[in-house]
Amino acid sequence: MRAMDTTGIAALTFDVFGTVVDWRSSLIREGEALERKHGISADWAKFAEAWRGLYQPSLERVRSGAQPWTKLDDLHRAALDQLIPQFKLDGLSEAERDHLNRAWHRLDPWPDSVPGLTRLKRKFVLATLSNGNVALIVNMARHGGLPWDAVLGAEVARHYKPQPECYRITAELLGLRPEQCMMVAAHNGDLAAASRAGLRTAFVPRPAEHGPGQTRDVRAEGPWDVVATSFVDLAERLGC
Amino acid sequence: MRAMDTTGIAALTFDVFGTVVDWRSSLIREGEALERKHGISADWAKFAEAWRGLYQPSLERVRSGAQPWTKLDDLHRAALDQLIPQFKLDGLSEAERDHLNRAWHRLDPWPDSVPGLTRLKRKFVLATLSNGNVALIVNMARHGGLPWDAVLGAEVARHYKPQPECYRITAELLGLRPEQCMMVAAHNGDLAAASRAGLRTAFVPRPAEHGPGQTRDVRAEGPWDVVATSFVDLAERLGC
Repeated sequence: MRAMDTTGIAALTFDVFGTVVDWRSSLIREGEALERKHGISADWAKFAEAWRGLYQPSLERVRSGAQPWTKLDDLHRAALDQLIPQFKLDGLSEAERDHLNRAWHRLDPWPDSVPGLTRLKRKFVLATLSNGNVALIVNMARHGGLPWDAVLGAEVARHYKPQPECYRITAELLGLRPEQCMMVAAHNGDLAAASRAGLRTAFVPRPAEHGPGQTRDVRAEGPWDVVATSFVDLAERLGC
Repeated sequence: MRAMDTTGIAALTFDVFGTVVDWRSSLIREGEALERKHGISADWAKFAEAWRGLYQPSLERVRSGAQPWTKLDDLHRAALDQLIPQFKLDGLSEAERDHLNRAWHRLDPWPDSVPGLTRLKRKFVLATLSNGNVALIVNMARHGGLPWDAVLGAEVARHYKPQPECYRITAELLGLRPEQCMMVAAHNGDLAAASRAGLRTAFVPRPAEHGPGQTRDVRAEGPWDVVATSFVDLAERLGC
């Protein structure tokens, strides 16, 4: 395999939830730990999907202006509070609810994420371009050993993806033109928005993100600049 | 020596120019490289001090509102353009001027900075709280191997130190109350402003920052929470 010509690309900007970390398995693991510790049982896979399922509707209220700027930690907490009766988690104390909400700060990387990022960092600036707030992404990086050069994205841009400002402002903060940045994501919609904002695109599918039987985002659905099977494969393709 | 009680402190926020990196020696080194390459000679120590001397007046125009928000790279460039006739650097091409302006992205750490930060990172979130723009601080970190968890400060807060918003917004982005952050700086004025904003304070003097005969900031001039002789000593005192 010949590496692509990366002339002019200075930074890679990363989607995080699903692309870098496995939120579903990590939330299930957190639920199971809760079960062992507090004897509270639930269908944790269903709980994880339900919690993540409230993500886009929550963001949409902020994107549309129906709700003022609210960081993702607080949107996660409102969604958790909404799910507590349904999943019979009423027995959790305030401290335990806060700890559970911070499960998003403790998501585990996919096995290839750290080895791939470590190689990619030799050649490119690595920045997050996530809807996660700064503290969430910083704590997750410390938890999983993710070697970011900069934590940017929604909270510093004050716009949630796929709003173009989120991509544009992140590139500006890196001192780069959009086309000097390559967006890396496991989601076709994120890459489509990045491309409209002028960034280059790399698709790394994560066919287990939603567990068995996933149908969305299993293959590239646009003319992305690179399609790779893992972050290590991405490093190969980008000549790192 | 007994380490202090650091209960409640989650992050250290760092001044960068002078505190983490030795801007003066680094700029002199860049000038000497230019001299070898282009045969342009100047008193590089005087040049470094003159360039840095225009820093506070430049920031003050932005802080006062006389000039709209301008990132430090652009303030540095305007100051360089102002100094070019005086130091007879007119022979430099536009590309060479741009390269010289980015000398601020290539400043070298003090010898204790990386070993000290590496130890401090085990226990605390490490964030920059500098007037340098994000790209400048990111490139400098890659140049010198500075292990930041997050690059925050003036550009993301849209306020230059010592304005209180710069400290307050950085703490907020870290998801922390001001008193959960400890400002580390070699400048008493920076610590005074951080303290007024509610942060804790650590003074690490850099008596060679301005070269031989430095008189300012050679000792603690306020009731700072910690005074250390180096970043390694700071790590000791904070129990890392």
